[in-house]
Order: sequence, then structure tokens, then C-alpha cells
Amino acid sequence: MLDALRSPLATLLARRRQGYTLEAPFYTSPEIFGADLDLIFGRHWIFVGVEPDIAEPGDVMVVQIGENSILIGRDDDMSIHALHNVCRHRGAKLVTEEKATVGNLVCRYHAWTYGLDGRLLHAEHMGDGFDAGCHGLQRVHVRSLAGLLFVCLAEEPPADFDAMAAAMTPYLAPHDLPNCKLVKQIDIIEEGNWKLTMENNRECYHCAMNHPELTTSIFEYGFGYAPEQMDEQKRAQFRAYDGMVKDLHAKWEAAGLPAREIDHLDDRVTGFRAERMPMDQAGESQTLDTRVASRKLLGQLADAKLGDLSFWTQPNSWHHFMSDHIVTFAVLPIDADHTLLRTKWLVHKDAVAGVDYDVDNLVAVWDATNRQDSELVGLAHAGAKMPGYLPGPYSPHTEMLVEKFSNWYIGRMAALVG
Amino acid sequence: MLDALRSPLATLLARRRQGYTLEAPFYTSPEIFGADLDLIFGRHWIFVGVEPDIAEPGDVMVVQIGENSILIGRDDDMSIHALHNVCRHRGAKLVTEEKATVGNLVCRYHAWTYGLDGRLLHAEHMGDGFDAGCHGLQRVHVRSLAGLLFVCLAEEPPADFDAMAAAMTPYLAPHDLPNCKLVKQIDIIEEGNWKLTMENNRECYHCAMNHPELTTSIFEYGFGYAPEQMDEQKRAQFRAYDGMVKDLHAKWEAAGLPAREIDHLDDRVTGFRAERMPMDQAGESQTLDTRVASRKLLGQLADAKLGDLSFWTQPNSWHHFMSDHIVTFAVLPIDADHTLLRTKWLVHKDAVAGVDYDVDNLVAVWDATNRQDSELVGLAHAGAKMPGYLPGPYSPHTEMLVEKFSNWYIGRMAALVG
Amino acid sequence: MLDALRSPLATLLARRRQGYTLEAPFYTSPEIFGADLDLIFGRHWIFVGVEPDIAEPGDVMVVQIGENSILIGRDDDMSIHALHNVCRHRGAKLVTEEKATVGNLVCRYHAWTYGLDGRLLHAEHMGDGFDAGCHGLQRVHVRSLAGLLFVCLAEEPPADFDAMAAAMTPYLAPHDLPNCKLVKQIDIIEEGNWKLTMENNRECYHCAMNHPELTTSIFEYGFGYAPEQMDEQKRAQFRAYDGMVKDLHAKWEAAGLPAREIDHLDDRVTGFRAERMPMDQAGESQTLDTRVASRKLLGQLADAKLGDLSFWTQPNSWHHFMSDHIVTFAVLPIDADHTLLRTKWLVHKDAVAGVDYDVDNLVAVWDATNRQDSELVGLAHAGAKMPGYLPGPYSPHTEMLVEKFSNWYIGRMAALVG
Repeated sequence: MLDALRSPLATLLARRRQGYTLEAPFYTSPEIFGADLDLIFGRHWIFVGVEPDIAEPGDVMVVQIGENSILIGRDDDMSIHALHNVCRHRGAKLVTEEKATVGNLVCRYHAWTYGLDGRLLHAEHMGDGFDAGCHGLQRVHVRSLAGLLFVCLAEEPPADFDAMAAAMTPYLAPHDLPNCKLVKQIDIIEEGNWKLTMENNRECYHCAMNHPELTTSIFEYGFGYAPEQMDEQKRAQFRAYDGMVKDLHAKWEAAGLPAREIDHLDDRVTGFRAERMPMDQAGESQTLDTRVASRKLLGQLADAKLGDLSFWTQPNSWHHFMSDHIVTFAVLPIDADHTLLRTKWLVHKDAVAGVDYDVDNLVAVWDATNRQDSELVGLAHAGAKMPGYLPGPYSPHTEMLVEKFSNWYIGRMAALVG
Repeated sequence: MLDALRSPLATLLARRRQGYTLEAPFYTSPEIFGADLDLIFGRHWIFVGVEPDIAEPGDVMVVQIGENSILIGRDDDMSIHALHNVCRHRGAKLVTEEKATVGNLVCRYHAWTYGLDGRLLHAEHMGDGFDAGCHGLQRVHVRSLAGLLFVCLAEEPPADFDAMAAAMTPYLAPHDLPNCKLVKQIDIIEEGNWKLTMENNRECYHCAMNHPELTTSIFEYGFGYAPEQMDEQKRAQFRAYDGMVKDLHAKWEAAGLPAREIDHLDDRVTGFRAERMPMDQAGESQTLDTRVASRKLLGQLADAKLGDLSFWTQPNSWHHFMSDHIVTFAVLPIDADHTLLRTKWLVHKDAVAGVDYDVDNLVAVWDATNRQDSELVGLAHAGAKMPGYLPGPYSPHTEMLVEKFSNWYIGRMAALVG
Repeated sequence: MLDALRSPLATLLARRRQGYTLEAPFYTSPEIFGADLDLIFGRHWIFVGVEPDIAEPGDVMVVQIGENSILIGRDDDMSIHALHNVCRHRGAKLVTEEKATVGNLVCRYHAWTYGLDGRLLHAEHMGDGFDAGCHGLQRVHVRSLAGLLFVCLAEEPPADFDAMAAAMTPYLAPHDLPNCKLVKQIDIIEEGNWKLTMENNRECYHCAMNHPELTTSIFEYGFGYAPEQMDEQKRAQFRAYDGMVKDLHAKWEAAGLPAREIDHLDDRVTGFRAERMPMDQAGESQTLDTRVASRKLLGQLADAKLGDLSFWTQPNSWHHFMSDHIVTFAVLPIDADHTLLRTKWLVHKDAVAGVDYDVDNLVAVWDATNRQDSELVGLAHAGAKMPGYLPGPYSPHTEMLVEKFSNWYIGRMAALVG
């Protein structure tokens, strides 16, 4: 491992072996973690939250991306701004809570006062020569995709966000995220590198052994299999599943709900993938009994059985849009060895707690699943730290999307390291 | 920030922009922190405590300056010695408590025994060829300025300590610190770089918004203002304050108590500043009711209304000498992100607790103020760690002494980096 | 210290001063700690445990050596294997407990299944092109010396393990360690570099001042003295001790129990030393009353007074074999500043708790002694971290074995740095 660590990043990138997990330094080296922050999290569109996080004028939320504290606020005209959360005077952090509602942004140190759009409105004792116009808060790019908020720290963000937005809005818009309310947020700090959190999300090979709650509604067949190792009975089950997917896709699309797989995980700068997938049992929602968690369906939706619209983005998010509720997942790197997984559960804003939905029931499946995955990520990270770790082979039948994540990551790093 | 970090220290020093806070690495880089320990804390006079800390023969105190543990003890002849607190045999730390009273200094490992002057008195099993005279504890320079103890780790300490001592002794001596007793010490670990602790101390622009207890006795006018932003009423108040200062200075100096400002904060290696400043309300002391905290006045002082003699030293201390009590502040860096602020409160050694003074009343103003400042230092440090941090402008009317601190620091670093 | 840290390791090794403690970076530098892991713990035989740790087929234990997690297991044919504890698929850590009993080794992530010999037995979904034969767990060399287990992480381990085994088996075998049972294990994390733990173990100059429990049974004379500093009475006591040693060695050897000192601490790659030493008072065992802790003597031993067979190995162990019980000590480095000391107490496997032995009585002396030593190691490490630390002289009369440890360490490092 020492030799690998000493190799410059470019060499490590160049010698990446297709179809295999990355070499250990990509998971463990603080230097490569620093490069990840600069090149991946500093130059791509990063999912940070949802419009209902800042529903009203004056609402602000603070998100930490690496060392950056980013303030995202809603102005009086309902526009959304993202700003660096640091005063232009003596550099104090401005907003210290994760959420707040404010009139203006007032620094606690010397009372410098900014508007929600970042303009400096007031600064005492600075004298006649001082130009307030040059001392506003620095802006960060922010975009809403059907209510999902993405920021980009680069001066020039990747232009293909628009392509993703054009393709995905028809899928997402019917679920009307902007008119949802945030019912629960759970933050888990995983003891592993952020890439291991992402790789864990990109396959379900581990589901059968680890996720009893999730696999109640999820069809194992949807995530790949090795045909050579299947007996005739299983092959028949797969053919049946395949037929059901085709029928349901056709039915949903006829109802105006795009369903077919769209996959640009490793052929775009702003990589993404989506598919509306059928669910098992009652087939309504990712709950313990597979029935809707909220009786008030989202937007104008009338049918509870609309499958699970899964939406994955590179480098740091995935989402489940169902007829009754939405779950979003943001992966935020802390250091080479720790990652914040932030999960939000949303229902229709008019749904009533205790009447239309029960919070514990709403979060049960994914809270359990996240905790199970967190343990697995910890095991994988513990292994990557050992000198005895060797890159291992991905299954060509069940780990294709992990390979696409690794391809995307290596490709983007190679392009930006130059 | 990455580029700045990669720049050699000399480049960062050379491009420092006058009138602005320092670039982020000066607050956050472990490498520059190491240079601070070597060049600032290793080669200047560092305030560490007061004579009453080690009032009696055999009293020792231990102070940590960076990685150095320094033992300061009073010998039988009342002389004060400073020594490296590490055994010359197997290198064990000698005194592990912050304060102790000892006969000799006996190492717990193999019982090597040293006098309080550092001489090795006894070492068993070392055989005939062993020369005890070569194995005494290593000495550190130590000086008392009217009872304030300063050490210097360099072989050749700055010679201008004598100039500071000559100038300041007439100010300080009437308060008779050596005949005070230490009533309370409070250590706060601030979550910020030591330079942010110092900068916070060198202005009162933040006082109005943050320090309700302190501003009861302190006149806002004494710390600067922007004349352009004052109305006629305020201007009249300032003229009245200005007249009062002149009158009181004349009165105090006539009584043998030097009062006028003396400022060598950025034109000396051993930088310092002092001024005896009037106080508001009852005007006696920095207490919640602005009256003396101790009825037994210091030394031979007879008048309770002697103002607040403020004494600042570079790089790491400030002090308030009043008619009834003294408060000293030592700033001791822990790492780039953490700083120990050690505050000591002293009254006349004959003052009786519960009769002449109440400890809670004595410490109320500065304990509250320190905790408020500690939060502000934490906010400033959190901001400096963000890539979005930019050096900001000092107010030319209220942050002149911050600028002098930064000037002194940059100047000393530049001179010593060479 | 800074200059020393900047010097390359080779320079530091070359200028080591004989008879003195090492320069500070050898105790404090993370870089040199990394080199210690690579060159010392990565290329020598490391003591990790005892056969009774894994007495039955399917028993596995996990030992951490630096970043390596090593799995040591007993197979169905009673053979012992050591393996890197990391899955060859996605790199998850396999066994997370310190001890377990298993059928096969099954990875929790995707259920890859290995035999106790490391062969991959099963992996789902990998498809037709996958060669299980190339994906077994990586093996680590492991040897048992009369029941003491040593591993070597190098591809080619030092060949002179055989010489140590040949010399030491006659000493150790009569105590029949493989037929002992592990009664107690106590792990202490010492706040010091592993070399300070080792140096502390290699002299008893500190015993008189620190170890009241241990010095009840241990003769001070056995660990050296400065003849120049002895009076006539002490010299007579030493002559008496010397005579007793000769008599007891002759008696024990006549009974088939090798006793004489054998010392290869600094003239072998696999350095070691052993001697059967008489004990004071009742002279049976290292207990508070110096009588046997277990009434069931080990192996075929019939006499309780067989002294203390001490066995030291470089770089990381020492052991006490007595007539009734065995104590083993493994030193496992955590980082430059922390070291795990793992102590195991063993008695005859047929001894009955509460009848033949009392656990508290069994562990009393060495548990107390370890805690005392841990404090001393902490003091020595705290001193080594101070810039005021200077290498100090070893006593030529009582610290010869410390010097041999340092010689061995410096010699091995110099040989391997090249």
C-alpha cells in the first residue's frame, strides 16, 4: 500500500483495472480525499436538499460540503440563493444552526448585515472610503430539479445539468416535491469513505443477506443475476418478472408517468440514471407491509400502485419517488474515513400526522436499511485500510452499476487532474 | 486556499495586505502553526504566570508552551528558576501536576534527584565514569516584571525586555502584584487559532453587541469610532470623554501613578502597550456594579477610583490592574485549531474571602466576557477554515490595534524566516 | 527536534550514540512509526498469542498488527493457519470479533465463503469466467514455539526462527503450554511508543521505586547493580545470591530443566534471551505470597519451586513460565503514541477455578505491575515529545538489556533501510 500511496494520483488513475474495486488509497488516503473534494465535490452538481427545506421567505439552511459551509436561503420573492456562509469582515461563520428563519443575515461578531441575496446592507465604523458593494457574500450556483436542490461550487458549473433536468422533469414532476413537507431527517455518520457509501448503494447483491425490511417490497430480479447459476424454476420466475416490468411500464407511461430506464451514469459529466420499478407484495410503497405510508397521495396522483421511481445521480445522491412519499439521500464526505448520509422523508404537505401517516411507519424500511448499509460500509472501509487488501472483481451480473460509478469517478478525476 | 497553503511561508508573508485580516493558512495550517511555535513562542518573551503562583520556597508550577513543558520554581533563597520539565536519564516528565510544593525534584522512574535550580543531586547505579555535573536539567530564561512572569525558550532572548521593564515598572509597581494572592484561575480551551484570540482582544468594536457585563464599566469611546458616522450628540459625548481622560490622567500622574498611553505594539521585538483608562458608572473596578470587588486596596493605594491600567504584550498577554484587584490573561497555543486562555484573578494577600471580597463577584465580568469571546473566536476560526473565506478589511477607526498585532506578527515572522 | 525530524531516517540511524536512549523522533515521529511497522513488525517474527487461544477446530482469533488484521484459525485437522482478514471480493473485513468459532469464514457483505485454510469455497453471481482458485485469502506465515504463536508478514520470514526454536524448546516444553487453558487476558493501552514499553520491560532499575508487588518475589540482585556504590554488607548479599543461582541452576538442570542464561538479544535477526531465575520468600511463583497460584502444576512437573523461566523476544514479547502458571506479554503498536500491551495468564487445563486456583490471586502481581509500568511509559513518552528532551545515558550496570534492545532495533532498521 505504501508504494501505491506514494504513486502520484495520475499513475493510480491510469492503472485502474476495469471491473475491479479501486486501489486502497482511493478509499483511505487523505490526499486523494482532498483531491475528491476539489475535483469531484468542488466541480460537479452536488445534491444538498429539497425545496421544502426552505419553504418560506427568510428560511435558510446550511449544508457542509467538505470544508465549505454553504447557506441556502429563500428570498422575499421566493427566489433561492446559495452563498458562502462566512462574513466578509473578520471571517466569522454567519449562520451556525442547520436551519433558521431570518430577516437579514447579521454577523454575530460586529453586526455586519447582509440580505438573503448576499448584498452587504450595513457595516458600522468602516469610514468614508469603504465600498459596501465590494463586500457582499460570495455566491454559489444553485438549481432546483423538480424540487431537488443541487449546488455547484465551481465558477463554471457543468452545462449538462440542463440535459438532466429536461430528461428527468417529466419523471419527477408528477410527484410534486415542492408541495411536499419534510416529515423526518436522519443523519448517519458512516465509518467509511464516501465512495464506499456510493458503491454500496449501486448494487443489491448484498440485499438478500442483509436487508430483510427492504427486500419485502423490492424484487431481487430487478438488480441482476447470473444466468449460469440459475435453475429452471428461477429462470421462469425471471421471465415472469421481465413480462410484468414491460406491462407495468406500458401502463404507467400510458397514464403519463415515464417509467423506462434512462441511464447516463458514466457517459455524462452530470451522470444520472432513473427507472420506475415494480414492487412486490401489495406493491404500493417501500414500507414494512408494502402499502402506502401516507393516505394522501402526492400531487394529482390517484393510483397508489405506481412502483418506485428510483433516481440516482453522480456523485452523491439517490432518491425514491413513490405514489405517497419521497425519500432522498445525500452523501456528504467528512474525511477520508467518515461520511454523512442524510436521508429525508417527505409526504404531501396537506397530509396529517397520526391521521394520514405515521412517522415511524414512514421511515421504518429505509432507516433500518441505512443502518445495515452503514455497518457494511464500515466493514469495507476497515478492509481497505489493511495492507492485505487487494482490489476484487465486481460481479458482471449484479455489480454493473458499481462499475459505472467507479468508471465515472475515475474518468472525471482523470479529466480534471489533466 | 490550497494554492495559498502550497505557497511557501515567505511568499505568504511578503504578500500580506495591509489593513486586512491574514490569509487563511495563518489561522489554519498546521505547518504555519509549527512555525509560530518555533519563531514566535520559541524566540520571544512569553507571559506564563505571576509570582504569587509560586509564593513560597519549594513551590513549582508547570506551563505548557507548545510541546514544551516548562517547570518554574522558587528556590530556598526565593530566586525563581525555569527548567525543561524532563529528566536527563530516560527522559521521563518530572512534574505532572500543574502546581506542587517539593523539596527536590525527584523523577518517578529511577529516582534521579535534582535541586530546584536544576542541578543533578543524585543518580543511582550510574557507576564511576558518570559526571553528574553534565546532567542537570536544562535552563530556560525567566524574568519577573513587577510580579508578572515571562519566559523565553531561545538561547539568546530579545534584549529589549529591559526597555519594557523600565517603562512599565512605574505603572505596575504601585499595584504590588508580588504581595497579592491568587484567588481564582479559569482555563478555557477556545476552538480557534491563537492569533484569533489575540485579534479578538485587540478591539472593542464587538463589545457593544456581545459584552453587556464588560460595557457597564468600559467607555465605548475609549476604543475608537468613525467620526463620519457620528451625529452631533455623539460628537459632544466624545468631546466630554476626551476631556475627562485628560483630567484624570493629570490627577493620577500627580498622585505618582503613570497613566498616559505608551504604545510599542509594532515597533519593538518585545511589543507592548499600556494606558490607565477611566471607567464608567461608579468607576472603581471591572465588576457588575463597577465598585471595588475587594475592600482591601492593593499595595499602598488609598483611592478606589484609579481607573483600569490596561497592559498588553505581544504575542500572548493582556492585564487589567485596578485599585483593588488584578486580572491577567495568558494565551497559550495548543494546536492550529485550539488555544488555551488562562485567566487569573488576584487580590491583596491580606484580603479575607467572604469579608473583603466575594469570589463570584470578583470573577463575574471577565468570566462572562471570556466565554462570549471564546464563542466569537470559534466563529472566526470556523470561517477561516472555509475555502470561501477571504481576508476582510479592518475598520480604520476601531481595529487599529488588531492591525498592529498583525503587523507585529508578520514583521517578526518575516525577520526570523529570513 | 525539528532538525532531527527533518533528517532522513538513515542519518538518524547512523548517528545513534551507543549507551544512550534514542533521539526523540524514534519515539514520536509518525513517519518513523510507519517505518517501524514496515521494517520491524512487517519483517520479523511477531508474538501474537498462544495455542490455547484456538484450542478446538473452527476456533479463530484476530490480531491487529499495525494496519494489518490477521486471522489465526485452527482447521479440522488441528493445523493452524494465519490469513489476511479481508475478503477478496469487495474488501470487507471478515471476522470482526477478537475470538470466534466458525464452520467456514463467511463474508457478511455478499456471502463469499472461505475455508479455514483460506480457499474460496463459494461466491454467487460471479459468472462462468470466474476462477475461484485465484481468489483465496492471502496467507501469513505462522509458527508455534512450544505453544507460543508467532506470525511473520514478510514473504520470506527470517530463517533463524528455527535456531530459536531448537534452543528454546527444551526450556519451554516441560511447562506444556499447549495443554494449558487461558484463564484471563487483560489489554492495556499505554500512552507511549512501543519502544518505550519494550525498554521499560528490559530493566529492573525502576522496580524498587515502583513495583512493591513484583519485588516480593523478584531478587533485586538478578537485574544488576553498581559495585562501586555497594557497601560491604550488600556485596556479601550479592555473593550469596550468586551462589544460590549456581546451586539452583545445577539442581534444575539435573532434573531435566534447562536453566542457564542464553542471550541472543542483539546478535540474531530473531533476537531472544532466557534464564530460569530463583525467586525470593517461598520462592514458588510470582504471586503476592510467592506461593503457587494454581495447585495443579503444569505438564509433568512435580516440584513447585522451579523458579521463574523468563523468555524475552525481539521485538515484542516476554514471558514468565513457572511451575504452576504461565504469563505471556505481547506488545502491539497502535500509533507512534499508543501501544497495546496484551497479557495472558494460563494454568493447567485441568485446574479447577475456585478449587485449584483463584483468578484474582493469579493475576494480582502482573496486573498491578503492568499498570505501574504503563504510567512510567506514559511519563517517558510525554518527555520524549518535549523539545527539551535529550538522549540520556543508560546505567552500565542495570540497563544493559535496554541497550541490547536499542542496539537490535537500530541494527535491524539500518540493515533494512539499506
